[in-house]
Amino acid sequence: MKKVCVLLSGGMDSAVLLQHHIHNGDQVRAIAFDYGQRHSCELDRAEMLAASKGVDFVIADVSCMAELLPGSSQTDKNVAVPEGKYDEDSMKATVVPNRNMIMLSIAIGHAIAHKCDAVSYAAHGGDHAIYPDCRPEFADAVNACAQLCDWHKVELIRPFINITKADICQKGNELGVDFARTWSCYQGEDLHCGRCGTCVERREAFYLAGVADPTAYGPSSPTVEQMIQNDWHLPKD
Amino acid sequence: MKKVCVLLSGGMDSAVLLQHHIHNGDQVRAIAFDYGQRHSCELDRAEMLAASKGVDFVIADVSCMAELLPGSSQTDKNVAVPEGKYDEDSMKATVVPNRNMIMLSIAIGHAIAHKCDAVSYAAHGGDHAIYPDCRPEFADAVNACAQLCDWHKVELIRPFINITKADICQKGNELGVDFARTWSCYQGEDLHCGRCGTCVERREAFYLAGVADPTAYGPSSPTVEQMIQNDWHLPKD
Repeated sequence: MKKVCVLLSGGMDSAVLLQHHIHNGDQVRAIAFDYGQRHSCELDRAEMLAASKGVDFVIADVSCMAELLPGSSQTDKNVAVPEGKYDEDSMKATVVPNRNMIMLSIAIGHAIAHKCDAVSYAAHGGDHAIYPDCRPEFADAVNACAQLCDWHKVELIRPFINITKADICQKGNELGVDFARTWSCYQGEDLHCGRCGTCVERREAFYLAGVADPTAYGPSSPTVEQMIQNDWHLPKD
Repeated sequence: MKKVCVLLSGGMDSAVLLQHHIHNGDQVRAIAFDYGQRHSCELDRAEMLAASKGVDFVIADVSCMAELLPGSSQTDKNVAVPEGKYDEDSMKATVVPNRNMIMLSIAIGHAIAHKCDAVSYAAHGGDHAIYPDCRPEFADAVNACAQLCDWHKVELIRPFINITKADICQKGNELGVDFARTWSCYQGEDLHCGRCGTCVERREAFYLAGVADPTAYGPSSPTVEQMIQNDWHLPKD
């Protein structure tokens, strides 16, 4: 049995990761990050998910990132959230500079303070090689820091690194994850918009996994059939 | 001319570092960290130092670290601040888990957002090899992350890594740094206590550099002559 600190965003991937470690019999705690994201409702989802599993949970308030690291559509209301299937430019618009290293550093510190063996996060094989801080060599460099920063060594693990988001969806379905409790949309409205890049990836994952999508999408969302016909790009109005 | 983001703590080393980069003609901005330290007055000193030089300055509010990374005398009022010259155990009591990686990660993100060439911090040759996250191999590992985390690469530099704190003091004296504006003490009282490990190192640096110490020490502080006689350990009462 390992003591594991899981990065829990409230999205579907990390919800499955949490359940994966519980299923493995690991002793789990979870950490989420308030980095000033406009879709802060994901934090409520993370808290609900942790509470439903009886897992110790903290939110790290790094909302100062919105001011210190400006220019991302995730934190800056002046930058529009890209819609439709991600391409290189639309992905770049969502990047919060060095967000992953900041979150992992805090998670590693939290793991050291609680004498955990590992920090686990839900990077997956379909993660965009375009994002520098989603690449394996970046994760290896952060893991090297985690081996050197304290007397107590913590290992950075990515159990889903060799499977796709659709595989994660299927795995979560098998493990009984309640996907209706998870949140993906970057828009921060009451319902998932069904149109932004992250909603599109969510819908595609359910479709490819052959798992019924329990998500309530907003009124301006295309149907999944329309999305498939357009190769997951937004249909023209 | 480089664009440099300086980690400015309000202590004497980073005050000299700021002046060093200004003297070099670099385009400088500065970042300080509110990590819930009991000696938060150092933040006021950092702000004053930056303002006196007309340097852009931000404070990153990561005060959540006090709760997320408990057990250090720097952030936890239940843990006493060690007094006298540091030894292995007393230093360990001051450690905030992974504090350096967290601060450097945020500084790197801030530097990326502002298209800086480098993040500079005032690690020095006398820094305690006992602290894992003060060792060169840790800094190299963080620098590797800074090369990989974004399209815009930032270099992590430590201009004082081969000189001692006394050398820094001498250099600051030559550059006209007003040391009376800097703050070192971990106790967080109105005056420097003159007794804690960090005060002792400050006093020793002025003494070894042959620079007059302008610091006002509190009433329970030993005299510098008493400190020298006791090899910088606290004289017995």
